[in-house]
Amino acid sequence: MDEKIERPNLNVIPGSPIYVGERDPTETAFSLIGYDSSRAWLKSADTVEELLAAKNSPLGDLNPPGGLKPPIVWINVNGLKDSAAITRLAEHYGIHPLTVEDILDTGQRPKVEEFDNYLFFILKDLHSREGPELVSEQISLVLLENTVITFQEAAGDPFDGIRRRILNNGGRVRKMGADYLAYGLVDSVVDAYFLVLDDMGAKIEDFENRAMDEKDGAFMPDIQKVKQALLRIRRVVWPLRESLSLLPQLNPAFIHEDLGPFIKDLHDNVIQVVETVETYRELIAGVMEVNLSAVSNRLNQVMKVLAIISTLFIPLTFIVGVYGMNFTHMPELDYPYAYPLTWAAMILIAGGMVLFFKHRRWF
Amino acid sequence: MDEKIERPNLNVIPGSPIYVGERDPTETAFSLIGYDSSRAWLKSADTVEELLAAKNSPLGDLNPPGGLKPPIVWINVNGLKDSAAITRLAEHYGIHPLTVEDILDTGQRPKVEEFDNYLFFILKDLHSREGPELVSEQISLVLLENTVITFQEAAGDPFDGIRRRILNNGGRVRKMGADYLAYGLVDSVVDAYFLVLDDMGAKIEDFENRAMDEKDGAFMPDIQKVKQALLRIRRVVWPLRESLSLLPQLNPAFIHEDLGPFIKDLHDNVIQVVETVETYRELIAGVMEVNLSAVSNRLNQVMKVLAIISTLFIPLTFIVGVYGMNFTHMPELDYPYAYPLTWAAMILIAGGMVLFFKHRRWF
Amino acid sequence: MDEKIERPNLNVIPGSPIYVGERDPTETAFSLIGYDSSRAWLKSADTVEELLAAKNSPLGDLNPPGGLKPPIVWINVNGLKDSAAITRLAEHYGIHPLTVEDILDTGQRPKVEEFDNYLFFILKDLHSREGPELVSEQISLVLLENTVITFQEAAGDPFDGIRRRILNNGGRVRKMGADYLAYGLVDSVVDAYFLVLDDMGAKIEDFENRAMDEKDGAFMPDIQKVKQALLRIRRVVWPLRESLSLLPQLNPAFIHEDLGPFIKDLHDNVIQVVETVETYRELIAGVMEVNLSAVSNRLNQVMKVLAIISTLFIPLTFIVGVYGMNFTHMPELDYPYAYPLTWAAMILIAGGMVLFFKHRRWF
Amino acid sequence: MDEKIERPNLNVIPGSPIYVGERDPTETAFSLIGYDSSRAWLKSADTVEELLAAKNSPLGDLNPPGGLKPPIVWINVNGLKDSAAITRLAEHYGIHPLTVEDILDTGQRPKVEEFDNYLFFILKDLHSREGPELVSEQISLVLLENTVITFQEAAGDPFDGIRRRILNNGGRVRKMGADYLAYGLVDSVVDAYFLVLDDMGAKIEDFENRAMDEKDGAFMPDIQKVKQALLRIRRVVWPLRESLSLLPQLNPAFIHEDLGPFIKDLHDNVIQVVETVETYRELIAGVMEVNLSAVSNRLNQVMKVLAIISTLFIPLTFIVGVYGMNFTHMPELDYPYAYPLTWAAMILIAGGMVLFFKHRRWF
Amino acid sequence: MDEKIERPNLNVIPGSPIYVGERDPTETAFSLIGYDSSRAWLKSADTVEELLAAKNSPLGDLNPPGGLKPPIVWINVNGLKDSAAITRLAEHYGIHPLTVEDILDTGQRPKVEEFDNYLFFILKDLHSREGPELVSEQISLVLLENTVITFQEAAGDPFDGIRRRILNNGGRVRKMGADYLAYGLVDSVVDAYFLVLDDMGAKIEDFENRAMDEKDGAFMPDIQKVKQALLRIRRVVWPLRESLSLLPQLNPAFIHEDLGPFIKDLHDNVIQVVETVETYRELIAGVMEVNLSAVSNRLNQVMKVLAIISTLFIPLTFIVGVYGMNFTHMPELDYPYAYPLTWAAMILIAGGMVLFFKHRRWF
Repeated sequence: MDEKIERPNLNVIPGSPIYVGERDPTETAFSLIGYDSSRAWLKSADTVEELLAAKNSPLGDLNPPGGLKPPIVWINVNGLKDSAAITRLAEHYGIHPLTVEDILDTGQRPKVEEFDNYLFFILKDLHSREGPELVSEQISLVLLENTVITFQEAAGDPFDGIRRRILNNGGRVRKMGADYLAYGLVDSVVDAYFLVLDDMGAKIEDFENRAMDEKDGAFMPDIQKVKQALLRIRRVVWPLRESLSLLPQLNPAFIHEDLGPFIKDLHDNVIQVVETVETYRELIAGVMEVNLSAVSNRLNQVMKVLAIISTLFIPLTFIVGVYGMNFTHMPELDYPYAYPLTWAAMILIAGGMVLFFKHRRWF
Repeated sequence: MDEKIERPNLNVIPGSPIYVGERDPTETAFSLIGYDSSRAWLKSADTVEELLAAKNSPLGDLNPPGGLKPPIVWINVNGLKDSAAITRLAEHYGIHPLTVEDILDTGQRPKVEEFDNYLFFILKDLHSREGPELVSEQISLVLLENTVITFQEAAGDPFDGIRRRILNNGGRVRKMGADYLAYGLVDSVVDAYFLVLDDMGAKIEDFENRAMDEKDGAFMPDIQKVKQALLRIRRVVWPLRESLSLLPQLNPAFIHEDLGPFIKDLHDNVIQVVETVETYRELIAGVMEVNLSAVSNRLNQVMKVLAIISTLFIPLTFIVGVYGMNFTHMPELDYPYAYPLTWAAMILIAGGMVLFFKHRRWF
Repeated sequence: MDEKIERPNLNVIPGSPIYVGERDPTETAFSLIGYDSSRAWLKSADTVEELLAAKNSPLGDLNPPGGLKPPIVWINVNGLKDSAAITRLAEHYGIHPLTVEDILDTGQRPKVEEFDNYLFFILKDLHSREGPELVSEQISLVLLENTVITFQEAAGDPFDGIRRRILNNGGRVRKMGADYLAYGLVDSVVDAYFLVLDDMGAKIEDFENRAMDEKDGAFMPDIQKVKQALLRIRRVVWPLRESLSLLPQLNPAFIHEDLGPFIKDLHDNVIQVVETVETYRELIAGVMEVNLSAVSNRLNQVMKVLAIISTLFIPLTFIVGVYGMNFTHMPELDYPYAYPLTWAAMILIAGGMVLFFKHRRWF
Repeated sequence: MDEKIERPNLNVIPGSPIYVGERDPTETAFSLIGYDSSRAWLKSADTVEELLAAKNSPLGDLNPPGGLKPPIVWINVNGLKDSAAITRLAEHYGIHPLTVEDILDTGQRPKVEEFDNYLFFILKDLHSREGPELVSEQISLVLLENTVITFQEAAGDPFDGIRRRILNNGGRVRKMGADYLAYGLVDSVVDAYFLVLDDMGAKIEDFENRAMDEKDGAFMPDIQKVKQALLRIRRVVWPLRESLSLLPQLNPAFIHEDLGPFIKDLHDNVIQVVETVETYRELIAGVMEVNLSAVSNRLNQVMKVLAIISTLFIPLTFIVGVYGMNFTHMPELDYPYAYPLTWAAMILIAGGMVLFFKHRRWF
Repeated sequence: MDEKIERPNLNVIPGSPIYVGERDPTETAFSLIGYDSSRAWLKSADTVEELLAAKNSPLGDLNPPGGLKPPIVWINVNGLKDSAAITRLAEHYGIHPLTVEDILDTGQRPKVEEFDNYLFFILKDLHSREGPELVSEQISLVLLENTVITFQEAAGDPFDGIRRRILNNGGRVRKMGADYLAYGLVDSVVDAYFLVLDDMGAKIEDFENRAMDEKDGAFMPDIQKVKQALLRIRRVVWPLRESLSLLPQLNPAFIHEDLGPFIKDLHDNVIQVVETVETYRELIAGVMEVNLSAVSNRLNQVMKVLAIISTLFIPLTFIVGVYGMNFTHMPELDYPYAYPLTWAAMILIAGGMVLFFKHRRWF
């Protein structure tokens, strides 16, 4: 079972959140990106205090004098080992202790939850960046007013494109609010599923080519692995489907109305992932049917050849056995044309058999 | 896998929409049909500017002086290569950038979306006009007030009938509004699915005739191809089912009340496509059951003949072997009637076997 | 594929409705039944004009002077060939052109539609009155105030019972309104499904008796035919289920409140048809499992007999072969008790084998 | 097909209700139980008039002077033959003619219907009280104010427990209203399903024990019988599920608020029956998988033994055949050690084969 | 069938609740834990009176003078034998007789019910604490204002962690209300399902390793046992899913608003159990497919070896048989090179066969 079933933490005393997961936790590191429509800055930090201090340092003169939009801040937390620091950060932003537990427990289901002062997303980043294995990594996202905080299980995330776009002022992101940033981050996680699905698609195409000829026993286990991977994607995407469809009805303080078309777009993508998974599952069922039918056809071929050879020669062997008997009184043995007549009889019998087989359309 | 899973564009920088698809994009060409109840005109154009200039040129004196209905304009865009021109056209009509991205990305799911000033449809035109292969082509439709704009991936569309009816004043189309034109265009795309389904139906009928006799290995892969094509039709029609049922509740500025029965009719057709696909899937399952049962019956026949021949002759061959032994002291060998008695014994044994088989109803 | 998939008319120019169907259209003939609680009259007609003229001719003195209920008129149209006459009739009663198209197109799904001045029903009459084949015939019904118009594809309908009851004043029909007449007509169509289902039931019972012994290849194709017929019934009944459940909420001008229990009864019957179809499908699945298991058991029996005979005699045949060798120096050959000892050895081996088989419980 | 599909009456002229069913109708007999919290009396009657006269005879002085609760009357009708008497009884209580038809037609689906002055229940009593066969009997129940009327197809009902409790003043029944009595009667019908399910459970357990060894052909047909019986229970219980969940919203004149917890309890029991049926179906599917796997394993064993014996001895038989040839010039024949060397070669070949089989893990 | 289907009590006279279950009832014992944010005490009792007396004994001076929160009391009842005592306890707290019946009947479905003065939970504790068998034990929970009463079928419960936390003031429990205590107790039951699922997961992983090689007949029955256990878990968890989603809408006297996130968390866990069960079922289906395919591959291998050996040697054996015949006139026998030529012919034939097999890719 490659498919590790993730589950929430048991027997953990509420009140002292710690990392819960299958892997060793990665060391915690912080980074911060701040931007408004005219500027953007990036800052790394080792401690929460350093991070919070750096939050608006380079702004200085940019501080909006009045009525202007404040800058957007995106804090990214890499690695969940230092649970104390994460708890301090969460307390600074007024995040509920249950949310902190969820962030630190990597066995959560994807979900979107609304709290009084923030929205909380749990996502699963699926990728095979580090090898042939499909790796699942939990990404949590907290959307506050003008601030987005993301938490990752390990280094390496699908957010590089957005980082670059913010810093280079590409696309719409610099012109819009924190909700658009959150949308972009979730969207990049969902986009990564398509890469994984492309990979699956190539494998299924390969299976389809092998299905007719495949004889070695690895075929079926290989297919099962792809099926398990599809199960995993579905488990990861399915809950998002419902959560995202509820997003537009949430507190408009977090999700502004002009984000509507983008959320719809994201929702469409999620549905497309789900439908593609279903389609792949049906294709795999088809591959297995073809393979089963091919295996059974081959067995039938073999059995038919065996049956034809056997039924052809078994009667003949009986006949030659008869004249191999050593009875003293066997008149045929001394008959001069006995041998050629025996041959003639055997050829007749064999020919009749062949005609019978032809008639039954065994050839 | 003939079934290409379509997916939305990844890593595209929002803000600069470009064509995304499996095929090379076709050169972009524009055409315009204008009409009211008394006149209709057709105009081709190479650039957006030429197109927009031509929009109401031949009208001149026809411009309704007061209270009269303005003419309906249908702009058709063939080929999605010139994304700049398409963007300009979209801006002229106040179309949202996300819609432009969807038009240019041929991996979209069929859908109907409502915007403030227009309705947006994505459809898939399925046809085999260019060969035996089933081709899927994306058609986008924007319904504004008095104007319909259609975008096609490639030349060749299912709209010829409507074009002719507009120009020849056939049917109701000249008497009704832009919403009826949009209905007619969507309806012609859906009607084309029935042609594809007819084709499938003929293939399934052919499978039913072959199912009892089929021995060559191509049967199952052929069936799988039809199953994949049915999957594809379902994926293309299913989303329409829901979208169309929501249409009557949309902004009455786009969909007038008197269009109600037509939309219901369209919805009925879509449901009929979905139900036919489901029925075909069940018929195919039945074909496979018949084929499986026929294959298994044939194998049983072969095995039974083999078993009968073997069990008839193996004991006899043993007997003749016994009297082929070269022992010095075998009293039977010299007994004068040994040979005919042996034959008699063998015939008795064989006869008994045959009776046994009859009793077991193996014949 | 006996199952003809019906589909709506394509490429038909709206505005000039003509007959669309698989069969040659039957010549159109009209008949009219008028009745109130005290009288009933029947009239045939060849043209629409004749029909409409005959509508209230025999009433004369019966015309209700004031406040009395007007008579109910039921017009039956047999055969859809004369589309012009049908269109004229429809126009006389203010029936929408789309409805006329639906009446003339025999590839429609069953449905109930509400229009401003009438209710429109499409039903499928399933019967095997003309032979062993299951025939599907479209029946359309328009319910206006005090008038019911029925349209049939071909002569021969399930309405005879109601005709007789009206003319003989049997049951409630003469005492109630046009809505009760419509209910009665729809109910008689639904009742006919039970006759067809009874037939299926008898066939399935027959399959159950054959399942254990069946060897000839016709079994599975026969079953598939029944499965296809069940598919067909389901396709014909399923849409009614939903439509009928919406009836009570429609315009009370057509469906009076006191019809409520009757519609509920009708709805119950439709649900019972659907459930019976589902039950039959499960029974058929069971029959196929029994048959599959019987076939596989029989093959196992055959293989076991083959295996027992082969494994019993092959070693013995080897032994007698050994002593059939012609080596000059084979001391056993001259040993006086060699022959009986060989027999003893062979009997021992065979006996051991039999014990082994018994132990393995192959008998 | 043991499963008789029940269906409503066809071609029955409305207005003259008669018995419709598979069996001969039982003679009709009436009985009446009246009770209040202080007294209870039981009365049998042969005619409706006698029954109605007996309704409050023994009450006499118990007649509540003012404001006191009137007594509850439970009329039980056994056997549906005398449709005229039943119709008279129904008219006395103002029961709708359609309800009378439903009572007399034993092919109805279970349901709960609300009328202006009563609630109408149709139930199916499943039992095997009279033999190994599962018998289904229709029980109708009409709940009026202070009166409950039950109609049974045949004598013998599951109501004995309640009768005893009323007469002996056991439990709550004497203290509560007619709605509680109706609840108790329905509950006793549902409780009887558990007895039938217990029986099924025992049979499935027996199947599980036989699944590994079963060879005779009766196994699969036996399983199918249980599957059909489960289908039957589900068909009988499923409609109740929905009907009962709607009960609390009905007219409070029939169902008082304090019955709420009891209805919920009844509903829970019905759901438990449905879930148990589903679980049994899954268990049966599991049994069939085990049996299939066991059959296939046994066949594999047989084939392997056959293959091993054949492949061991066929080459050896060939060798001894070679030295049984009668060629004049065969130098080996006269070689003194030829015979033992041949044996040695044969033993070597056989040993090699055995090693090969071991390597392939056929043992 | 390890799966015991539980069912409600039949034929029990309402009004005198007694224990109903599969096992012998355990002797009843009581214990009580009281706590507020500053103190906690534990007390055992043998009778209800002793228990109720002990309820607030140690509080004394702690009794809140005014406005302070009263202490929370948790009464735990171990064993359901003494139904009289349990009834007395229930009456003391105003618990409905139907609830008492449910508590004493261990065949109930899990559910949550709202009464006027309390909430009632039925849960199933699944564990294998006492052996390899999966044991199911009913736990009932009554949540009143400031009081929680739990009833257990047998000693040994999953509540130890919470007991310790209350007594040692660990986590949030001492700071929150009775509703949080109830949440904690339900949560610990649900958490125990994950332990059982972990066990299943390990078994499935083991099956996956065995699936390719498995030959002994125990494989399939073992899998069926796990499938049955999964069925059981699903039956136990599924009803909770719905009940918990309705909890937040219940009377806020029992469930305070600040419990919202905790209930959501619990609900998430329940959904995760259900999804894991579904995933496990799909994994098991995959294991069976792999096993089936492996078995069929192995059989094909065996049959192919048998066919190759047979078809290789059967013709050769026929040839040597020919020259073993004893005809007087067989010219070949005396031809000097006959023997080596025969060998040459046989080698040619065998070689040709091998090439034929290679061509057909049987190796």
